[in-house]
Amino acid sequence: MKATAFSAMSQRTPEPPISWLMKMTLDHPHLISLAAGFTDNESLPVEHARELLAEILRSPRTGRPALQYGTTIGDATLRRLTAERIAHLDGRPGAPDCCAERTLLSHGSQQLLYLVTEALCDPGDIVLVEDPTYFVYLGITQSHGLRCRGVRMEADGLDLAHLESTLEELKRAGELPRVKLFYLVSYFQNPSGVTTSFAKKAAALALLRRYERAAGHPIYLLEDAAYRELRFAGDDVQSALAAPRSAGRVIYTGTYSKPFATGVRVGFGVMPPALLEVVARLKGNHDFGTTNLLQQLLSRALSSGRYDKHLVTLSARYTHKAAVMVEAARRHFPAEVRWAEPRGGLYIWTALPDARAAGPKSKFFRAALERDVLYVPGQLCYADDSSRRKPANELRLSFGGAGVADIREGIKRLGQVIRGEN
Amino acid sequence: MKATAFSAMSQRTPEPPISWLMKMTLDHPHLISLAAGFTDNESLPVEHARELLAEILRSPRTGRPALQYGTTIGDATLRRLTAERIAHLDGRPGAPDCCAERTLLSHGSQQLLYLVTEALCDPGDIVLVEDPTYFVYLGITQSHGLRCRGVRMEADGLDLAHLESTLEELKRAGELPRVKLFYLVSYFQNPSGVTTSFAKKAAALALLRRYERAAGHPIYLLEDAAYRELRFAGDDVQSALAAPRSAGRVIYTGTYSKPFATGVRVGFGVMPPALLEVVARLKGNHDFGTTNLLQQLLSRALSSGRYDKHLVTLSARYTHKAAVMVEAARRHFPAEVRWAEPRGGLYIWTALPDARAAGPKSKFFRAALERDVLYVPGQLCYADDSSRRKPANELRLSFGGAGVADIREGIKRLGQVIRGEN
Repeated sequence: MKATAFSAMSQRTPEPPISWLMKMTLDHPHLISLAAGFTDNESLPVEHARELLAEILRSPRTGRPALQYGTTIGDATLRRLTAERIAHLDGRPGAPDCCAERTLLSHGSQQLLYLVTEALCDPGDIVLVEDPTYFVYLGITQSHGLRCRGVRMEADGLDLAHLESTLEELKRAGELPRVKLFYLVSYFQNPSGVTTSFAKKAAALALLRRYERAAGHPIYLLEDAAYRELRFAGDDVQSALAAPRSAGRVIYTGTYSKPFATGVRVGFGVMPPALLEVVARLKGNHDFGTTNLLQQLLSRALSSGRYDKHLVTLSARYTHKAAVMVEAARRHFPAEVRWAEPRGGLYIWTALPDARAAGPKSKFFRAALERDVLYVPGQLCYADDSSRRKPANELRLSFGGAGVADIREGIKRLGQVIRGEN
Repeated sequence: MKATAFSAMSQRTPEPPISWLMKMTLDHPHLISLAAGFTDNESLPVEHARELLAEILRSPRTGRPALQYGTTIGDATLRRLTAERIAHLDGRPGAPDCCAERTLLSHGSQQLLYLVTEALCDPGDIVLVEDPTYFVYLGITQSHGLRCRGVRMEADGLDLAHLESTLEELKRAGELPRVKLFYLVSYFQNPSGVTTSFAKKAAALALLRRYERAAGHPIYLLEDAAYRELRFAGDDVQSALAAPRSAGRVIYTGTYSKPFATGVRVGFGVMPPALLEVVARLKGNHDFGTTNLLQQLLSRALSSGRYDKHLVTLSARYTHKAAVMVEAARRHFPAEVRWAEPRGGLYIWTALPDARAAGPKSKFFRAALERDVLYVPGQLCYADDSSRRKPANELRLSFGGAGVADIREGIKRLGQVIRGEN
């Protein structure tokens, strides 16, 4: 007799890298973690949250609705504020395709990525992702038995020529009907830090359209804008929602957790109505609605201006922490190490010389751990794609969770590991 | 070209009855809803929540951890308090099989029902459910392409003889290898209000064990105890966790949302370690952890005694509302209508004479709606099971959400509809 008859999905779902990284943290009490995607602890909006919740819960009139069930798609006011905010960021106030009716709230944007993938993809289907990409999304694809194709990136985002040749190749192989979406982490990408330009997003959409006839159905652009509001240099970039003929093809997801508080999990998505209806049905089975109290909290944070105020604080804080990491990298990393100064997000993506392995089983990784420094091996951020080997020489370094002194010390020690010092 | 290539799961997921019922509510502004599973609005713990959150957010020391990411399985303290509480309710303090290590926290217990089903079941698998059962769980099974077999109920819970004959029949048909679990809503069942006795739970577990060899794997008892703490008469009943040889076979799920506040979605499950590990992996993809602030809130509500204090208030309130509904039913329902006095939960399950149809398309349903009264047609609470017809003569009446005057008036009007008055 089998110990348990797990589902096919369970069998496709190994322990995620994130658990393994967390165990490392527990096993090394003095660890400097440059791995965690945690947000900065010191700037968490304790005071804002206290005041906003006190306002909501001051009277039964506002308190009771916040403590009662809401609807599956989420609070109407927060959906409106969310749509308006995105339309405003895109310089398209009042855009009819970015409205409350097309907006759904979720338990973090991770849940929305899950629901959208569940809504569109069957085992064996193909999802295009960036090379590298957000590794927790890769967990979703693996669990659903999807095949991934990695699209290379350049300094201003995805490599259009490579996207085209990938689509062409899939077309020749008769595989286009299995291609459902292109997952693009468009702002200060996790892990590379790269922002994809608006021109490239628009061009990618046009490209996907060209292959739809052979696919027999729409190929969606799933734009994950989780880090959009964690910007500390440069201008904002319009989302794919603003691209010509984007209507009906763009799924835009974002989150309030990272820019406000990661302990307050509320994400959102704007998507075509027919897809939203299906995603809402699936969410009805998952949890029939995101927790109401936190939606009210964010609704008030937005309408009171406290959210924007907090963003200013956050931006200053990350500007500083990123600068500390950049300065330390300049000082301690040898010239052959490549990395780029971040303009937002939480990460500095670092490449050792090609031949130098930094994967989870490498000598390099162990040497760093011996010095109590943890990073995310870049290898984990590449999809299984037999058409190329996964680069093993990269590191994702986060300045999000670690304190300033730890960032300095962590980079210093990594520099020692790179130079092979004992 | 197809409008969208939705997944097989999407195609198996129609609009849930709950959305349709909500639309009815919106279309009838003066509606008296005896349909909603909402909890009583007036007793929502606005003051407790305000005080607890103010305590958590009073200082950065306690506020920051609450506003930061937690872990996928949930806060260690709340997991311990939860396990201890269940063990205490079961009269088994310190029971090693009911401990923090076997406990996982989720975004409402609905999410746990989803995850457990996803962990164990493939399309075509069979799930045993009660006749009738919680209709949102039926949404999960339908969405996953599962087949359901309904097990009849008696006044003290499931009909053991029918469970046995169902298993025997499945064995003869060679279908046992597809049977993964028996879903049992054991306390003040939604919708029937029935509580399954401990003896029956233990006997059901023993029965399931007897068929495991032919199944080739464990058949789990998924005990949904969502309403356990909404008790206002009689004694508590031990959970299946307390039954002999239950270890490794019982998945116990519950929720803090219904007894505390439905706007604070935190559920929990106690389950065998191997299953917990898989469920945690799946949850890693769904959302990598339930929102931390609300876990801290509940942790403090439990340890401060405020949770227990609130339960006393709640119990008094529901005792009153249930009594109002019972009195109105005695007065307005003709003798041929069958219903039972509830001892907990939110519902009175009502059966019209057999031949009288009260389903969603019935004259009866329309007549009630014309009088601005909404109920959940009992038919919706029966799984698709070709071995029997779905009874159409039943109504789920909730005293949870409606006010006292509305309960009286709603039952009065239903009485008029039953007697065919104009």
